[in-house]
Amino acid sequence: MKLDTNATGVYAIAPTPFLDGGAIDWDSVDRMTDFYFECGCNGFTVLGVLGEAPKLDAEEALAVASRVIKRAGGKQIIVGVSAPGFAAMRSLARKVMDLGAAGVMIAPGAGLKTDDSIAAYFRNAVEAVGSDVPWVLQDYPFSTGVTMTSKLVKQVVTEHPSLAIIKHEDWPGLDKITQLRAWEKDGSMRKVSILVGNNGLFLDFELDRGVDGANTGYAFPDMLVDTVKLSKAGKRDEAHDLFDAHLPLLRYDHQPGVGLAVRKYVLQRRGVLKTAVMRKPAPAFTAESRADVDYLLARLARRDQRASFKLAAE
Amino acid sequence: MKLDTNATGVYAIAPTPFLDGGAIDWDSVDRMTDFYFECGCNGFTVLGVLGEAPKLDAEEALAVASRVIKRAGGKQIIVGVSAPGFAAMRSLARKVMDLGAAGVMIAPGAGLKTDDSIAAYFRNAVEAVGSDVPWVLQDYPFSTGVTMTSKLVKQVVTEHPSLAIIKHEDWPGLDKITQLRAWEKDGSMRKVSILVGNNGLFLDFELDRGVDGANTGYAFPDMLVDTVKLSKAGKRDEAHDLFDAHLPLLRYDHQPGVGLAVRKYVLQRRGVLKTAVMRKPAPAFTAESRADVDYLLARLARRDQRASFKLAAE
Amino acid sequence: MKLDTNATGVYAIAPTPFLDGGAIDWDSVDRMTDFYFECGCNGFTVLGVLGEAPKLDAEEALAVASRVIKRAGGKQIIVGVSAPGFAAMRSLARKVMDLGAAGVMIAPGAGLKTDDSIAAYFRNAVEAVGSDVPWVLQDYPFSTGVTMTSKLVKQVVTEHPSLAIIKHEDWPGLDKITQLRAWEKDGSMRKVSILVGNNGLFLDFELDRGVDGANTGYAFPDMLVDTVKLSKAGKRDEAHDLFDAHLPLLRYDHQPGVGLAVRKYVLQRRGVLKTAVMRKPAPAFTAESRADVDYLLARLARRDQRASFKLAAE
Amino acid sequence: MKLDTNATGVYAIAPTPFLDGGAIDWDSVDRMTDFYFECGCNGFTVLGVLGEAPKLDAEEALAVASRVIKRAGGKQIIVGVSAPGFAAMRSLARKVMDLGAAGVMIAPGAGLKTDDSIAAYFRNAVEAVGSDVPWVLQDYPFSTGVTMTSKLVKQVVTEHPSLAIIKHEDWPGLDKITQLRAWEKDGSMRKVSILVGNNGLFLDFELDRGVDGANTGYAFPDMLVDTVKLSKAGKRDEAHDLFDAHLPLLRYDHQPGVGLAVRKYVLQRRGVLKTAVMRKPAPAFTAESRADVDYLLARLARRDQRASFKLAAE
Repeated sequence: MKLDTNATGVYAIAPTPFLDGGAIDWDSVDRMTDFYFECGCNGFTVLGVLGEAPKLDAEEALAVASRVIKRAGGKQIIVGVSAPGFAAMRSLARKVMDLGAAGVMIAPGAGLKTDDSIAAYFRNAVEAVGSDVPWVLQDYPFSTGVTMTSKLVKQVVTEHPSLAIIKHEDWPGLDKITQLRAWEKDGSMRKVSILVGNNGLFLDFELDRGVDGANTGYAFPDMLVDTVKLSKAGKRDEAHDLFDAHLPLLRYDHQPGVGLAVRKYVLQRRGVLKTAVMRKPAPAFTAESRADVDYLLARLARRDQRASFKLAAE
Repeated sequence: MKLDTNATGVYAIAPTPFLDGGAIDWDSVDRMTDFYFECGCNGFTVLGVLGEAPKLDAEEALAVASRVIKRAGGKQIIVGVSAPGFAAMRSLARKVMDLGAAGVMIAPGAGLKTDDSIAAYFRNAVEAVGSDVPWVLQDYPFSTGVTMTSKLVKQVVTEHPSLAIIKHEDWPGLDKITQLRAWEKDGSMRKVSILVGNNGLFLDFELDRGVDGANTGYAFPDMLVDTVKLSKAGKRDEAHDLFDAHLPLLRYDHQPGVGLAVRKYVLQRRGVLKTAVMRKPAPAFTAESRADVDYLLARLARRDQRASFKLAAE
Repeated sequence: MKLDTNATGVYAIAPTPFLDGGAIDWDSVDRMTDFYFECGCNGFTVLGVLGEAPKLDAEEALAVASRVIKRAGGKQIIVGVSAPGFAAMRSLARKVMDLGAAGVMIAPGAGLKTDDSIAAYFRNAVEAVGSDVPWVLQDYPFSTGVTMTSKLVKQVVTEHPSLAIIKHEDWPGLDKITQLRAWEKDGSMRKVSILVGNNGLFLDFELDRGVDGANTGYAFPDMLVDTVKLSKAGKRDEAHDLFDAHLPLLRYDHQPGVGLAVRKYVLQRRGVLKTAVMRKPAPAFTAESRADVDYLLARLARRDQRASFKLAAE
Repeated sequence: MKLDTNATGVYAIAPTPFLDGGAIDWDSVDRMTDFYFECGCNGFTVLGVLGEAPKLDAEEALAVASRVIKRAGGKQIIVGVSAPGFAAMRSLARKVMDLGAAGVMIAPGAGLKTDDSIAAYFRNAVEAVGSDVPWVLQDYPFSTGVTMTSKLVKQVVTEHPSLAIIKHEDWPGLDKITQLRAWEKDGSMRKVSILVGNNGLFLDFELDRGVDGANTGYAFPDMLVDTVKLSKAGKRDEAHDLFDAHLPLLRYDHQPGVGLAVRKYVLQRRGVLKTAVMRKPAPAFTAESRADVDYLLARLARRDQRASFKLAAE
């Protein structure tokens, strides 16, 4: 099933599991795939930056995508295909779409500097992956260094019928959501799906502004699922209560670099990953940081049962 | 009283209050000065980026520093003197020290690219302000674009006896604190004060790592004061409880650009500032954002009485 | 006499002369002022980056502008007023215009990232300096980090009748000139003056593309003047011949940082400046580099008499 | 034959030839390979940025390297293996070394910010490609955004016995060469080969400072070869004379983006490439720019016969 503009709920961003020594941990890949769907996700994304994609060679990247797509059994898998050139982007995109991916994710290339050159980049990218391939526009200036105004996002949405989802992770970004939704309402921009990223740091208020869900990697995707559900059901306070309970950990998890180590560690504690190993170059995950996370989990467990797994695990 | 390496507790970062139309609001300057000390701060900093310093001309900047120093009546005022050139830095530093400032704050100049050029920058800066003037090293890569390793911070601390305080706002930065404190302990770096910035987003764990306090602009400096006190008194859980209650608002307040608008608005709601006006160029502070803040304050009031002022004000 | 869109020929970019020890060398300021006009320049710019403007404090900056304007006796002096904030920009612009400056030069602020935010910047800047003050738009991405498309330049020209001159120093930039001149010809952009900067590294071909002259700091402004004249007189080959004779030195002079040291040294050799002193932070100007420049001058002297001064000086 | 620290003379940087439509032009690949050796080059580099490497997919990149290595018949081919991750770097490096490459070229990854992180990057890179593989350190801050002090270059040279060549293209960079050669002389750094890049814009003076040759892509590698020979033979003035004759074109060829179009066009005029086609995204190479290059070639032909091919070609 291909991505379309009706995407809603939660699409996780998946890490790539490794064994000690750095080989890909295929058992954990399978377990992780099952886990995301058990959590209530409607799909997930592999080979994003959080998937340590640049640390995989071309064969490994394809193998990960292939394994996950098969395991997902028809559920939606999105594959990150951002690359320094369009040839590699085309090559990966076509292969994973043949394997059954639901769509691809594309971020603007580093170093783009003007509205026109950003728009041109997406025209080249869509030509490369094929204009029939549904795609997710990753709008993440903190990571890419490329800032897009709401107006430019609208232009890109309008130029490319194959754009299905905006992965919104601009910061600050709340008023951008309000603007885009207003344009959809008054008919000046076609309706697309807006899912938020940036680890969900503003998911609570982004839902209030009308987004359709999240596409991010926080280690409790089940919390993200419930928060979206509560919000969509009109239970605003409950949505905020649940979100606020997780915010101390979510904020810790959101740190650049070490955040992925935190996430892998939590997924290991939850029994999803066998190890928390990252391939080089990896940030230090010190004993002190690990103790911080344990403390955060213990505090969280008082408000959300799902964090009490750790007691059982020990 | 000049700054020294024993600085502890909370030093706020102050905004510059304006009237509608953009003139400096001197009454609010006075009220704000009193407010910070009533909150339990040991001092505060003016003319930082959050003080909209680049929007003041040289005379205004000096007038603000002068007014605040007088009103503080001997308590410690730090003045931001970062400037595109050393002449302006020297000029402002010498004038405010003559007026009675406790010290100055210096960030590395934009565009510095190697460890050696950063170290050289601080040698030039200390020569400019005078090697007898106590100063705060602002280590804030997100804002300056300049990244300093722990090793380089140690070098700068060692080269400059007049460096009194590290304003630590690196991100991620917890292990950097642990490293610096370890070097102090084993004698390889002299003891200085470490106060944290970055809106206090990690104050809870930074205290666990051993910092002396905070030097930041969150609109509830009284919460920061209490959190530091609880932590220093060994009441770790209580410190985290108080901090976590504020985290949803603090995170909202931490957004680049619009964060200052939020902060001024909250200080207005608290009766400190007459208006929330920012000088141009100012980020939009939309009705939606204002409603978000009101909602956050209402939720916070359930856990911290200090946020219930808003009921009284209405 | 104020700047207008008819500006043509050469406007030099002036360094700020210092004595050993770093005090401003007022005799050299006067001599330099006379020199530029004797070379055939129609005016010159002070307090640009090449004028070490950030190393002057506010009083010094004003004093330099004042001295030069008086000495110029009614000829056109442009003053760089780029500053980190609009208050300082306003303050300096208004003061120098009162003193008799012909106009001001404004570059887009560092860190601007979208077409809309660049356009907004210039609206704020024009409001700050006053919409009656003629100005030079400095389009220099290498230095500012801000890239403007031709389309955006057209928009800024159209929005601001007070914009008199485009200081074109984009790289590559030849086709941008062709585009802007085409828009003037077909009426879609009003006619302005286009003067080139970037040390004149492409002046030969920029003249072929139709620019009106140069606004740059190469240490032989008399060569720039002659090259422009030859080109405007239709003597294309002669213009290129003269330019090519200087290109080895001009290229050497064009190096970031050390280029200004080279320029000051050549102006010293020409008897214009008493010293080649730069204020801190200054790049090293090594004995080897000085020998390189001497060698370049000796070679140049074989093709342009104006470089044989050095024999006389020794 | 593997690279070693005795590399001297000229190693060209090769473009990737394409046919109209964008397919790789294998005939031109062969002709180009022969051409570089006929010009007197001792080797050349493929799959650098100038080789449009990011526009090739993994299979194509390998095929280009393979074809060129075979054609070179034992002469030295260097392969650019810079990649966003170490897995791709390892994969490509090992494959091309198996095919018979003489060594690989590695630039520091984008975004590295401190001396320590740059040094760590090269440790990871050398581990990835294998510590027995000779490599070229590409020191090109303008392109990579990563600045290395002389001291740091020395450290990297010292840590990695497999580093054979420094491709020096820092700007300004003359004093860096003098420093490195001085350290070699006094024994504080082992002797390596220093070849210059940056299109050879300072080759004349870089030779005076003691470099061993060039590793760059200017479309007259035969001129580079002769200039190096003249300099090494002590004929300084003749070396400068030849270089200066080419400088107007070389400077034009040095423009970012369009420079590659110029280079391909000149190589087409010289009969080396069948077309000047670039793959997307390609800079515009306008009729005006083409006319500029024709004019430059005509002027050059008066001083260097090698540029008179164009008459024959017409």
